[in-house]
Amino acid sequence: MVETRRRQIEAVASSLFREQGYAGTSVRDIARGLAIQGASLYAHVASKEDVLWAIVRRAADQFEAAADEADRATRGATAPGRLEALVQAHVGVLTIDVGQASVFVREWRSLSTERRARMGARRDAYEGRWRALIADGSRTGAFAPADAPLAATYLLTALNGIVTWYRPDGPLSPRAIAAEYVALSLRALGAGRP
Amino acid sequence: MVETRRRQIEAVASSLFREQGYAGTSVRDIARGLAIQGASLYAHVASKEDVLWAIVRRAADQFEAAADEADRATRGATAPGRLEALVQAHVGVLTIDVGQASVFVREWRSLSTERRARMGARRDAYEGRWRALIADGSRTGAFAPADAPLAATYLLTALNGIVTWYRPDGPLSPRAIAAEYVALSLRALGAGRP
Repeated sequence: MVETRRRQIEAVASSLFREQGYAGTSVRDIARGLAIQGASLYAHVASKEDVLWAIVRRAADQFEAAADEADRATRGATAPGRLEALVQAHVGVLTIDVGQASVFVREWRSLSTERRARMGARRDAYEGRWRALIADGSRTGAFAPADAPLAATYLLTALNGIVTWYRPDGPLSPRAIAAEYVALSLRALGAGRP
Repeated sequence: MVETRRRQIEAVASSLFREQGYAGTSVRDIARGLAIQGASLYAHVASKEDVLWAIVRRAADQFEAAADEADRATRGATAPGRLEALVQAHVGVLTIDVGQASVFVREWRSLSTERRARMGARRDAYEGRWRALIADGSRTGAFAPADAPLAATYLLTALNGIVTWYRPDGPLSPRAIAAEYVALSLRALGAGRP
């Protein structure tokens, strides 16, 4: 019950943060979106930043869990096969709740210093998985030689850009987007389809 | 003289908008960055949004001029050669004033309705040049068959991501970034180096 309320708060806040930015959204705006009083909102959350923190942490949990699952499912596969699974996992999390993903991608820097540092470390570790896989594929010749950190950044920013234009009611399904983005990303790394 | 002052205002505002967002920056912050009174700032600009509009327009002018120049310089060349020039031009504008570019990429949606529509149309036209070139290359077999609009979006968001991490005093020169991003982008489209 309390958990449901918190999820409603996060959903409303995500869509407001996506539309008008974190700095441009007040606790009063969030309360209005839930049709409750600002004071009632404070029974559930201590501050606007706590809502941001909850959204960003939930998104990070999902990206990590999806990447873990992709890793497990492709253990022993070639680097291109593993990258394909990783891209599909990432696009899946981006599109399943694009409001939340958009806040994760664009607003995490609005966190206060200590939380920003903690989230920055998680983001670095996540990006590190991509770097390691690209470096591994470059080493074995499955990928063209590449500056692995720069290539990982290139791929992840291209993928994360999905939050700026994806609409669940738009013409492209998450599956179609993932297929095209897998093809572009594998080719970018100099690999054919696995 | 007046022009110099306006450029100073835009430079200070760009770096504040980049660091703390447009919504999180006040006219008073901009004035403080220039070590003048807020009231004095209003002698030069009518509103915070006018500063954003000036920054975004200047950036759009530069992206368009650089793309025009790249087009002229590669008239008659193959699609990969033309794309290489376009990527270099785009990375050049992104890195020559990364504060301004960051505001262009991340804050243009903060413009008021009519200006946002005008800028959206310019951005669409700019992206249209990339789509047309990719479609042309796909048609002639220089690029792999691709969903040209989606491939253009993929490339441009990967490139625009540079504003989130590039530092003029960082380890990578604009030239080195452009070279790597040209290679990744051409391969993503299924072309070798031109």
